[in-house]
Amino acid sequence: MYFGKVIGNIWATKKYEALFSLKMMIVQPMSAELENLGEPIIAVDTVGAGPGEIVIYITASEAVIPLPVDFAPVDASIVGIIDTINLAH
Amino acid sequence: MYFGKVIGNIWATKKYEALFSLKMMIVQPMSAELENLGEPIIAVDTVGAGPGEIVIYITASEAVIPLPVDFAPVDASIVGIIDTINLAH
Amino acid sequence: MYFGKVIGNIWATKKYEALFSLKMMIVQPMSAELENLGEPIIAVDTVGAGPGEIVIYITASEAVIPLPVDFAPVDASIVGIIDTINLAH
Amino acid sequence: MYFGKVIGNIWATKKYEALFSLKMMIVQPMSAELENLGEPIIAVDTVGAGPGEIVIYITASEAVIPLPVDFAPVDASIVGIIDTINLAH
Amino acid sequence: MYFGKVIGNIWATKKYEALFSLKMMIVQPMSAELENLGEPIIAVDTVGAGPGEIVIYITASEAVIPLPVDFAPVDASIVGIIDTINLAH
Repeated sequence: MYFGKVIGNIWATKKYEALFSLKMMIVQPMSAELENLGEPIIAVDTVGAGPGEIVIYITASEAVIPLPVDFAPVDASIVGIIDTINLAH
Repeated sequence: MYFGKVIGNIWATKKYEALFSLKMMIVQPMSAELENLGEPIIAVDTVGAGPGEIVIYITASEAVIPLPVDFAPVDASIVGIIDTINLAH
Repeated sequence: MYFGKVIGNIWATKKYEALFSLKMMIVQPMSAELENLGEPIIAVDTVGAGPGEIVIYITASEAVIPLPVDFAPVDASIVGIIDTINLAH
Repeated sequence: MYFGKVIGNIWATKKYEALFSLKMMIVQPMSAELENLGEPIIAVDTVGAGPGEIVIYITASEAVIPLPVDFAPVDASIVGIIDTINLAH
Repeated sequence: MYFGKVIGNIWATKKYEALFSLKMMIVQPMSAELENLGEPIIAVDTVGAGPGEIVIYITASEAVIPLPVDFAPVDASIVGIIDTINLAH
């Protein structure tokens, strides 16, 4: 799983049917120190994350697991909102 | 999921059977600000996207989910046409 | 899916059983303009592609779908030979 | 599988239900010579690894296999604590 | 699939149960011309590969297919020992 920040959302009227009920957020990948890493991706929100919140997101096959619909074509999902990051190094 | 722009298509007469009915588009990956990112890939169109349109595409295992055929060897699909990108940062 | 060129093949006498009947080709990844991109990989041929041909190849889980054997440990397959690339940009 | 070092953990009160019982650790990817490689990720601990320990972690679909819950949305797991690295080169 | 060279192995007393019977080798990814590419990874040996041997390895979901145990959390496996690399370019 990765660190990210919700920085926006997208609207798409014309889309694959199983995506209709899902909220598509723009997520900026971040480091553990919360610096931006690379380019934003699109992830489906499953926990009610809003703009500016630091989240945990997952990618690949597992991203479909938390969705309320079966077999949605989704490869990235927000699965948690981070409260605390404890770094021991 | 990722931002992309449809920039062309490909023809392949000789191909694996399950691919015959599918439209193979060339998609340029893009940033959330719609700048080109890296090299174009080949993705199957599932929403009727045409040249120049800004789309959402997915990769990996989930890419087979929206296809009308079972078990097609496909690892990238266009699943939506983007109307609006709202960036809050 | 990705653009590639078949640039050779490999022989491996000692290999996992399900791979015995498969042709393992060396594929150079390419851009849509057919310039070399990064390093060659090994992909299983499913369409009779020969040296010098421009092909479509897929990676990850879907690569096992076109194979004539079940459960082969394969993560890259050639699934089409490209006739024409139409670029609109 | 990859080499990594446990460098911290995260707390997330609001998260997808199947994640509630899992320990989410921050893992710094490392080389075989134990130098840092790129940015830390979040991985679920399945073997009782603590801060500073050198571990084996896996990514992608297989990461859900060692978990005590079914269908958890997890794409990285710690699956072993390394005792010895034998390099022959 | 990728080219690699076996350059060592690792020992891990404390590990996820399904990994106990598996040999974990350190594999240096290589180019088709057998130059080192990036950093070594950990892969499970399924063909009896020893130090210094040039091998084919696979990654992602397919890596579990050749294993003698079900549902092992493994994302990289050695599936062949290369005898000859024929490059036509």
